[in-house]
Amino acid sequence: MACPLPYAEKTPDPGMPHLHRFYTGPFPQSAPLITLREEEAHHALRVVRVREGDHVALFDGHGREFTGAVQHCTRHEVQVEVQETRLTDRPLPELTLAFAWLHQDKAIEFIIRHGTELGVARFIFFRAARSERPPKLNDKWQRLAIEVCKQSGRLWLPEFTLAKDLSDTLDGLEGQTFFGALDPPHAPLQLPPAASRINLLIGPEGDFTQEEVAVAKSKSALPVSLGQTIFKAEMAALVAITLLQHQAGHLGLPSGPIL
Amino acid sequence: MACPLPYAEKTPDPGMPHLHRFYTGPFPQSAPLITLREEEAHHALRVVRVREGDHVALFDGHGREFTGAVQHCTRHEVQVEVQETRLTDRPLPELTLAFAWLHQDKAIEFIIRHGTELGVARFIFFRAARSERPPKLNDKWQRLAIEVCKQSGRLWLPEFTLAKDLSDTLDGLEGQTFFGALDPPHAPLQLPPAASRINLLIGPEGDFTQEEVAVAKSKSALPVSLGQTIFKAEMAALVAITLLQHQAGHLGLPSGPIL
Repeated sequence: MACPLPYAEKTPDPGMPHLHRFYTGPFPQSAPLITLREEEAHHALRVVRVREGDHVALFDGHGREFTGAVQHCTRHEVQVEVQETRLTDRPLPELTLAFAWLHQDKAIEFIIRHGTELGVARFIFFRAARSERPPKLNDKWQRLAIEVCKQSGRLWLPEFTLAKDLSDTLDGLEGQTFFGALDPPHAPLQLPPAASRINLLIGPEGDFTQEEVAVAKSKSALPVSLGQTIFKAEMAALVAITLLQHQAGHLGLPSGPIL
Repeated sequence: MACPLPYAEKTPDPGMPHLHRFYTGPFPQSAPLITLREEEAHHALRVVRVREGDHVALFDGHGREFTGAVQHCTRHEVQVEVQETRLTDRPLPELTLAFAWLHQDKAIEFIIRHGTELGVARFIFFRAARSERPPKLNDKWQRLAIEVCKQSGRLWLPEFTLAKDLSDTLDGLEGQTFFGALDPPHAPLQLPPAASRINLLIGPEGDFTQEEVAVAKSKSALPVSLGQTIFKAEMAALVAITLLQHQAGHLGLPSGPIL
């Protein structure tokens, strides 16, 4: 076991580019000790093999990040002495991805993994007319999102919501909504200026029905196209999210003349 | 078995939105009969269950697409009578993705699957300083790319190449090259006007070394950033390809004022 070692044996490297990150659970007692338990303690003790004195980063999934040193380890818990706390607002615009329910777990996990990586704030799964069955929350999703936030450095965990159908989904949304549509006419996938909320609806394999398209338009959602390629639904979602996040300035420099 | 049925029993629906697509192999004899064999015949006979008279689409992976009707099936072959042939040029710019070798098959397959979906023309796998071993071609890649082309409607199969190291990779490239770089300064990820070839280099987990960055810059490659998120290498590649393909006009309408 790597842990029970003297506090100061391993001097942290101040230039160290990578701190191991762990999830504290929501709203932990912040001062001055935070205890990691269960999966996170397991990850710290058995996978990363932290030792007393190691510098680590913790996050609560609601924008708070803590840095500090491991003070004490037991077989099942890791206690961290917090030295610094930082609060980061949720990045704007808040992006909601409403995804028509697919019964393939793999596709749903793909969209949660990579959507979280790309900064989706809220996933809504709804029963589209061509979904085979109603959506069902899965405990694994939260765990998957935590993993992705740990790897990617994101500080805000996404929320997961279910909705009855497209109309119900649309009624719960604020801000501009876009939806993937095979048939023209299409609007450009363009963030409105200073948008604080933006929503993307992706239909099932087989697409939205004509009735669903009419419902979406009647509620001011804009139909967008991703060109001639026939993307899988989950890939279409990633492509559209990437384009929106780039416009929002979250994916590097805006395009412009080459320096 | 679905196949041996009279030619005209099933009338094709002229409004049918989706033709099943099959791969002919490279440069088939085009007129007037094309025979599907092996995996493609298996897919047609056992999965799609084509029948004589069914309308199907075939493609050769080099821009030629054939439409026609199944004329004859045996247990192992499907013969298609070609009614129409169409040639489509490779979309420009030709996009080369040079990806540092990772030994995880899953990550490589992810990048081939989704890179092909996004229109990568050539995959180069090279040994970066932080790659654990030299890359190795895998027969499965071609099969995977064929599957993706069948699903997505792409007509050009990507090529797969191996390269010794970053310098060797750069020497084989024409056109503007971008590379993912963690450290500033960064250039915008911006297509040059009328670019016919564009290249993207993605480093391994742990990134390029300082020496590799210097080599890339000495050969006019431009360092680009995807912002603050720590993306997995394969996801960084998809994000950058998406942004380039959008600028090239292959992912729907250009961004602009909302209609």
